[in-house]
Amino acid sequence: MVETNILRIPGPTPIHPRIERAMNTPIFGHRSQEMKDLMQSVKHGLKLSFGTENEVIILTSSGTSGLEATVVNATSPGDYVLVLVTGAFGNRFAQICEAYELNVHRIDVEWGQAVDPEQVKDYLSEHPHVKAVFATYCETSTGVLNRIDKIGEIIQDVSNETLFIVDGVSAVGGAKAEMDAWGVDLFVTGSQKAMMLPPGLSFVAVSERAWEVIEANNRPRFYLDFRKYRQSLADDATPFTPAVSLIIGLQEALMMFQEEGYEEVYNRHLRMKEMTRAAIRALGVSLLASDEDASPTVTSLVLDGVTSEELRSLLKKQFGLSLAGGPGQLKEKVVRIGHMGYCSPADVLQVISLLEIGLIQLGKDIDRGTGVAAAQDIYLK
Amino acid sequence: MVETNILRIPGPTPIHPRIERAMNTPIFGHRSQEMKDLMQSVKHGLKLSFGTENEVIILTSSGTSGLEATVVNATSPGDYVLVLVTGAFGNRFAQICEAYELNVHRIDVEWGQAVDPEQVKDYLSEHPHVKAVFATYCETSTGVLNRIDKIGEIIQDVSNETLFIVDGVSAVGGAKAEMDAWGVDLFVTGSQKAMMLPPGLSFVAVSERAWEVIEANNRPRFYLDFRKYRQSLADDATPFTPAVSLIIGLQEALMMFQEEGYEEVYNRHLRMKEMTRAAIRALGVSLLASDEDASPTVTSLVLDGVTSEELRSLLKKQFGLSLAGGPGQLKEKVVRIGHMGYCSPADVLQVISLLEIGLIQLGKDIDRGTGVAAAQDIYLK
Repeated sequence: MVETNILRIPGPTPIHPRIERAMNTPIFGHRSQEMKDLMQSVKHGLKLSFGTENEVIILTSSGTSGLEATVVNATSPGDYVLVLVTGAFGNRFAQICEAYELNVHRIDVEWGQAVDPEQVKDYLSEHPHVKAVFATYCETSTGVLNRIDKIGEIIQDVSNETLFIVDGVSAVGGAKAEMDAWGVDLFVTGSQKAMMLPPGLSFVAVSERAWEVIEANNRPRFYLDFRKYRQSLADDATPFTPAVSLIIGLQEALMMFQEEGYEEVYNRHLRMKEMTRAAIRALGVSLLASDEDASPTVTSLVLDGVTSEELRSLLKKQFGLSLAGGPGQLKEKVVRIGHMGYCSPADVLQVISLLEIGLIQLGKDIDRGTGVAAAQDIYLK
Repeated sequence: MVETNILRIPGPTPIHPRIERAMNTPIFGHRSQEMKDLMQSVKHGLKLSFGTENEVIILTSSGTSGLEATVVNATSPGDYVLVLVTGAFGNRFAQICEAYELNVHRIDVEWGQAVDPEQVKDYLSEHPHVKAVFATYCETSTGVLNRIDKIGEIIQDVSNETLFIVDGVSAVGGAKAEMDAWGVDLFVTGSQKAMMLPPGLSFVAVSERAWEVIEANNRPRFYLDFRKYRQSLADDATPFTPAVSLIIGLQEALMMFQEEGYEEVYNRHLRMKEMTRAAIRALGVSLLASDEDASPTVTSLVLDGVTSEELRSLLKKQFGLSLAGGPGQLKEKVVRIGHMGYCSPADVLQVISLLEIGLIQLGKDIDRGTGVAAAQDIYLK
């Protein structure tokens, strides 16, 4: 069969031909007028993506480095912080905090569930002097979307000195983000998820309140020192050589968001989530997250009688379809489907139709087309 | 006139169509078999580029982050270190060391000159307990190539506990690198110079001696923690999502090095340097570095009666030719020409022919074609 490559993991996500073409623009110097114009032109779109009036810093690095940058810039050794852990990436945030010698307290939630904002409220009423709360918007490892709006509200009610630091990787660009309205102080995302780019950039939006802490903080740092980026941003520049070609791609991606309209982008993702979930339910397969907790960008299904590896390798081999496995102990039970970025309802229908074939070939008793029909029902509603 | 873009700054450098095409390969997941195969396939070429048997770490970040990573992984607060400063990038290395609370001693050399190895010898005989010596191979800001071989020899003679940490940005890939023979312990470069890629990756080769220090070091670090990269490398992987498309480009770049042959690559760069220098001399314009100190990848000329900005903006406007200005106090007197990576003697002849026009238009009394003829003499020798 002709070689195909259908990438439906929760990141990296496929690259749209428009963005691919943009990134083929002959490269230019990072201290040139072209670069200044480029930096100027992406400012507005980045703010829209985060729902903020604050400046957004562009780091040439992976998302993890963006997470680390929030810790390095906004905390000092010994700071008492709370980390809300709902999966592998919440856990990573906690590990970063530990590596930087913070006094780390965790609220651990069973993987596949969102954190209950009331639990955060209770914790904070007893510990109002927490320096920062770390949360994950979309927990990519499970497909759960945490209620950042509610948690932000609770933090603001309890203290006006607690920073709210949010990992928005695999959410920002695909799920509504309202940084300012929600009271988020540091909001991070990566390029290779809903932002539709290859990996290599991370973006961090910084509130005025956070800047006060950052400017006064003297923890050792250099490449990730936000103060340097702020100074450069004022001049439409970056302090160090940025991944120029990816930023050219970013300009195109942001233009595409604005052409489609952010509301429609978010609605498309919600529709893709609902189509995927309806299909999986119709196939008699379990979903890891509840309807209330489910992310618009990634869906985890829980297999029974078939391993994740069996199903995924079969689909990869036959159709070039890449799906992801589960995190940690869920590795062999869970399959994760990414439906974000350059992804449409048509792509969801394709994934479901292939998933049906895979399950049938592995001996599952499924009526052909059942999942597709359920997804179509949602689309045609 | 038709819009052209001739990029002859000392990085980012132009991208070869083969590499451009390679980077357009549809993206794949960073935990896929394709990624493992890719990581496996670049190992050998990276080692050849550094002249080492040691493993080479791939960071998704700029070169500065690679420099910082050496400090973060291989030093502890209070360590006594020596930094050899021959320009803006040596100075940056010293700033990073200061940011990380090292006890920093410097040998400062006038910008435009290489460090005298004898001076390093004298210093180390008086201070044999220096924990690390930091040097810059090619000082991009001036176009000087420091004698890393000689300095390495001196360090090894004085102490077997002093680490030798070298910034190889704008040298590795264009100037011979013999990490193992020279006794370099940490050798860094970036993707966007002689390595022929867009910015976004940095590479760090690590000696066994350096690994001992790194493994025992408990300075806080996460994204730049080399121990994590070493563990992942054993499995042909990276600990965090890498810039996949740039690594696909790297595979092609390394293939091109091997097709041309590393010796020929280095000879081509030496030839381009000699052509450039002969031409500039023939035009009666001064060179910043001596023949002995000059780098094969970048040449600085010193203007008289004309500012760097005047000449560069004229060439940019008329021909789309980008050249770089000088660093710090040399800003207005110096023009830097990059001749590295995807660059051939034909490109050098083009730059010289345009430079002649620019100088003539700015009132310089130059016989047309003199510089080109001098460069041709070198080529035809």
